[in-house]
Amino acid sequence: MVDNVERLPISQVSGEGKRGVTDSVVMELPLTIVLNNREVATLPCSPISLNYLAVGFLFSEGLIASKDDIREIKVDGKGSTVRVEAKRVSPSYTPAQSKVESDIKISAAEVFALVDEFVQRSVLFKETGGVHSAALCDTKSILVFSEDIGRHNAIEKVFGECLLKDIPTVGRLLVTSGRVSSEILLKVAKRDIPLLVSKSAPTNMGVKLARDLGITLIGFARGRKMNIYANEWRVVA
Amino acid sequence: MVDNVERLPISQVSGEGKRGVTDSVVMELPLTIVLNNREVATLPCSPISLNYLAVGFLFSEGLIASKDDIREIKVDGKGSTVRVEAKRVSPSYTPAQSKVESDIKISAAEVFALVDEFVQRSVLFKETGGVHSAALCDTKSILVFSEDIGRHNAIEKVFGECLLKDIPTVGRLLVTSGRVSSEILLKVAKRDIPLLVSKSAPTNMGVKLARDLGITLIGFARGRKMNIYANEWRVVA
Repeated sequence: MVDNVERLPISQVSGEGKRGVTDSVVMELPLTIVLNNREVATLPCSPISLNYLAVGFLFSEGLIASKDDIREIKVDGKGSTVRVEAKRVSPSYTPAQSKVESDIKISAAEVFALVDEFVQRSVLFKETGGVHSAALCDTKSILVFSEDIGRHNAIEKVFGECLLKDIPTVGRLLVTSGRVSSEILLKVAKRDIPLLVSKSAPTNMGVKLARDLGITLIGFARGRKMNIYANEWRVVA
Repeated sequence: MVDNVERLPISQVSGEGKRGVTDSVVMELPLTIVLNNREVATLPCSPISLNYLAVGFLFSEGLIASKDDIREIKVDGKGSTVRVEAKRVSPSYTPAQSKVESDIKISAAEVFALVDEFVQRSVLFKETGGVHSAALCDTKSILVFSEDIGRHNAIEKVFGECLLKDIPTVGRLLVTSGRVSSEILLKVAKRDIPLLVSKSAPTNMGVKLARDLGITLIGFARGRKMNIYANEWRVVA
């Protein structure tokens, strides 16, 4: 975890007064993503898995459509730029998102077990309290896990890794620590994922999109409780 | 709070099984900000104080420099577009940020009292768990308070209101529920605010900027505890 954390001298104030301690603070890096020599975006992020972040971001933006589009990925020495060379670049637009069709079912106990594992894996969060996590799972276990200071970035990293390693997302679950707005729903739908589980709250547009797109949306999944906002039929007793 | 919340039928799962309830879900609106007939940005946000959000955003982006630059603000009927007519538009660039100079001091007890009041005021958070809050304060009380699904938006709304109502920010405090990255620090420095208090974690770049810019940075301010990351001299016993 060396690269993700900086140890800094700080003062802690509590009922017992003030004392100097050394604390772990999560690192932030401005990452510039370059696609075929064109600067596409600069994102504040955690300086790990930058290749996954760049690819996941370009995919979510609709600029690349598959792994086959990619010729080369170069992360520069200081890690502040990722250059992606693509054979073809798609026009950046959002096509009408089609409904996610999947008969997959999951039990409440399986959701709780996955969230438990998810929390256990959030090492950087436990150390710094300053990051979001995301994970691709099947109904039994976590397949891909990622942490980042940005809730969107954490999800892009998961999807970027899936894309580069040919890990299917169809019919699987995404677990996220972050709030679920419409943008998150669209990203998940684009990867044909029928189940989205969040530790936090959804927005009303998130719920509406989940209902329209056939995605089961679970929020406030904490301990042995959760709220099911959409397509409840996939959660069985 | 009618406009900020939608009541939706959901299922709650707990140790006692599953039951149908009606739950409050925070509303999300895509707001388009238009400056002198040019579309500047579309932000997912909470549909309140949209004039403040637009003005705060344009100020943070450096596109308008003061209230005097603004001729008219029109929020369209459905609230999905704010049109700002400006007498002059500044070139969008970030000048080197100068250091915040202020001799203001605050006691730990005053910080704790402000955070208590801040939490009390977070009505929408209490109802939905899905928003961030921000507040401008003096050492004794909250002067301007705002909530939004985005942590940046909540801060833009506070600053936009200050700008339009001629409420000075110099020498005051900003309290935020959200994580403190470098972007947040730059926004606060731009308003000459010497004290930034967060309920959450900072990043290492946030801490570095706070130190360089002369801003006292307090994180994890919860209950009777807090961490002081930078310019501790402003917090007195």
